Amino acid sequence: MNSKPSIPSGTRDFSPNVMRQRNYVFQKMKKAFEIFSFEQIETPSIEKLETLTGKYGDEGEQLIFKILKSGNYLSQVKIEKSTNFKSLTPQISDKALRYDLTVPFARYVAQNRNNIVFPFKRFQMQNVWRSDRPQKGRFREFYQCDADIIGSNSLLAEVELIQLYDEIFDSLNLRNITLKINNRKILSGISEIIGEEDKIIDITVALDKLDKMGELKVKQELYDKGISEESVSSIFIFLNLSGANSSKIISLKDFLKNSLTGIKGVNELSKVVSQLEKINLKSLNLEIDVSLARGLNYYTGAIFEVVANDVNIGSLGGGGRYDNLTEIFGIENMSGVGISFGFDRICMVLEMFNLFPDFSELDSKVMFVNFGESESTYCLNLLKKLRSEGIKSEIYPSPSKMKKQMQYANKKNVNFVLLIGEDEITNNSITVKNMNDGSQVNVTFKQLISILK
Amino acid sequence: MNSKPSIPSGTRDFSPNVMRQRNYVFQKMKKAFEIFSFEQIETPSIEKLETLTGKYGDEGEQLIFKILKSGNYLSQVKIEKSTNFKSLTPQISDKALRYDLTVPFARYVAQNRNNIVFPFKRFQMQNVWRSDRPQKGRFREFYQCDADIIGSNSLLAEVELIQLYDEIFDSLNLRNITLKINNRKILSGISEIIGEEDKIIDITVALDKLDKMGELKVKQELYDKGISEESVSSIFIFLNLSGANSSKIISLKDFLKNSLTGIKGVNELSKVVSQLEKINLKSLNLEIDVSLARGLNYYTGAIFEVVANDVNIGSLGGGGRYDNLTEIFGIENMSGVGISFGFDRICMVLEMFNLFPDFSELDSKVMFVNFGESESTYCLNLLKKLRSEGIKSEIYPSPSKMKKQMQYANKKNVNFVLLIGEDEITNNSITVKNMNDGSQVNVTFKQLISILK
Repeated sequence: MNSKPSIPSGTRDFSPNVMRQRNYVFQKMKKAFEIFSFEQIETPSIEKLETLTGKYGDEGEQLIFKILKSGNYLSQVKIEKSTNFKSLTPQISDKALRYDLTVPFARYVAQNRNNIVFPFKRFQMQNVWRSDRPQKGRFREFYQCDADIIGSNSLLAEVELIQLYDEIFDSLNLRNITLKINNRKILSGISEIIGEEDKIIDITVALDKLDKMGELKVKQELYDKGISEESVSSIFIFLNLSGANSSKIISLKDFLKNSLTGIKGVNELSKVVSQLEKINLKSLNLEIDVSLARGLNYYTGAIFEVVANDVNIGSLGGGGRYDNLTEIFGIENMSGVGISFGFDRICMVLEMFNLFPDFSELDSKVMFVNFGESESTYCLNLLKKLRSEGIKSEIYPSPSKMKKQMQYANKKNVNFVLLIGEDEITNNSITVKNMNDGSQVNVTFKQLISILK
Repeated sequence: MNSKPSIPSGTRDFSPNVMRQRNYVFQKMKKAFEIFSFEQIETPSIEKLETLTGKYGDEGEQLIFKILKSGNYLSQVKIEKSTNFKSLTPQISDKALRYDLTVPFARYVAQNRNNIVFPFKRFQMQNVWRSDRPQKGRFREFYQCDADIIGSNSLLAEVELIQLYDEIFDSLNLRNITLKINNRKILSGISEIIGEEDKIIDITVALDKLDKMGELKVKQELYDKGISEESVSSIFIFLNLSGANSSKIISLKDFLKNSLTGIKGVNELSKVVSQLEKINLKSLNLEIDVSLARGLNYYTGAIFEVVANDVNIGSLGGGGRYDNLTEIFGIENMSGVGISFGFDRICMVLEMFNLFPDFSELDSKVMFVNFGESESTYCLNLLKKLRSEGIKSEIYPSPSKMKKQMQYANKKNVNFVLLIGEDEITNNSITVKNMNDGSQVNVTFKQLISILK
């Protein structure tokens, strides 16, 4: 292969500069998860195909990356005229790459139920893979960061998770972020009131496309599903509710007064919102949005979505309450609520608004110039001492021309270059060149340490 | 699916306790890499099949996990009588999971050569996947942590990397670790001296199995490859060299005096070893081992392997110098040297020797008991203050029975439980229960902070 190598579309290499940014966000998130007493788990990148199958709807299912069996995977396969890729796949593949962190988490809980302390507050920060068409902000391999509280139906869990969103976005200096909140029971209540109870899934799926397709097309989809014009009009009156959260609650209570489920949803929503208003969020705007639907069918209570108001990049995160997620793995009555952070999009927004710190200033980096064998041997001992003091330091590996060594130091954002030639060795000193202002001083090792710290 | 769910063989779930251990090792390594001025990169989990094909030998190639193309992958495929899995694979798969970090690194360097500052000191800590038969200490998904210096042929790079091994094993309190070092040029020299220059690969491959198969079987393999008994005897005299490193060097110089390549190898080895002796390693034993071969064909100079002397678990890491690794991707004259840490095995050894710290003592964790709605609302504000002080804290989500809440606190290793009922709210105090000794005190919030910090 002599052509320039490349990586699969939708995947990325991360250079040292980008890694610093990603690690920065990663650490902020991890720290917040830990302060909130969430515990980290990791699950394998590869799950059994049967674990993932049937969990993500038809569209999602097609996006799962399947792994070919090892060895002679055709040895047990009979290929006939009727064989097509759908019938062949389960014969030649029994594993697939993780599609999200939620299903593996449910599988983990079911599998390890006897060793888990419930309510289980877990966080997980790992890659997921989807064979989606790549586009701006959408990749085939990307990070998800999830926090879930499972094994409790207390609404304090919702309150806790919204505070967690607030804490993390605040710590990243991301302002003007809105958390939209709704409740699936309210959507059920609306379907009930307009007499279309059995069409709740159609309604949810259609509403989920409001952002992308607009009101007209969503209305058409609802008509196509057999919902009357009158009903659709009623729905949209409520979707377009404006004003303060408290006045929305009042309107909803009135509209849904004849639906037990609907009223339950409004009460849950109201309780979470009023609890959060009492403790003051740092920077997150909390907005009841009855049009928020979230496509995933497993939500049964609160649903959330986070958007940056200043930029049209899609959601930065989302989540909700699920009462029956672990049921598919044989555990009933295990209500949970979870949120997800769109790590890659958050990084993009921070980059866009120039919100990353200047990493080159955060800690000093030091380089010894290499003047030759005897000098470098002398430097190796000093280098060892600097490193044991926790100072990032290195020696240029070969006695190249000074210009070349200085260029290296410059490009690598080295803050101080140390020059030790015969003179310095003789009088036991170090010449320190400050790379920011070009100044040079001759100091002892002790003085050097205090300059660097 | 109602049967108990499970994960693919050779993969693992990591519970919170295990994650703490893994994060501990991960952080120690990362810190050392950074102190040594290595820079982190990440490459995609998925590489194009053509990037990985032909790089790992026949045996390795079979262990690569291949990914099925998305959609109707059979639409362009004609299945005929002669079709077998080997001819079908490249038609239905064009991507595969990363098998190691070295080839993706070489691909990264070739692809990004214009943006890289050479010599490039990079580290990378990511999963790799191999469809190997799972056994103790061998998994199908596992972590590799690699550090490489590419773009310099200076032997200081070897010195630096061995110091890095020393630094990391020392920081993990792992003692009695031996770094075996050899040089491929010495093996070439030996082949030359015995007149079997063209069989250097056969010899390397055979010697690599010494640990697993023993001397007799390796000798037989060498005979089978057409190497004479006399030659094999000569080889083994040198493989079994004992004594101090310095005396081994002397014997090697004498034996290899008629091989230019061999002498070059001894000189390189000698220089690295003497340099390291001058700066004193912290805890690593450095041992010249002429029988060390390392199977990978791309090594051309120094080769390393790290073993724990107290336990028979295989190598904890290895590496070496490669002069032509990036050649396959179109870049010549780019010598590099790299080492790898067997992350999972290192964790196993730390566990075995009880070398992990007691994480429950490292930072205090706090839980508010939940006495009901009004009390918990009051607690939420205190909770927020504790968290803003960086204290890991939580409130039990529902007003369950005291016993249940205390059990949760116990199992989660909470150090302090905070009890705030009507009395405490009235007189603005907090009752603190120390979970280690069961003692209880009533304090102000300010006093609480000083107890916790």
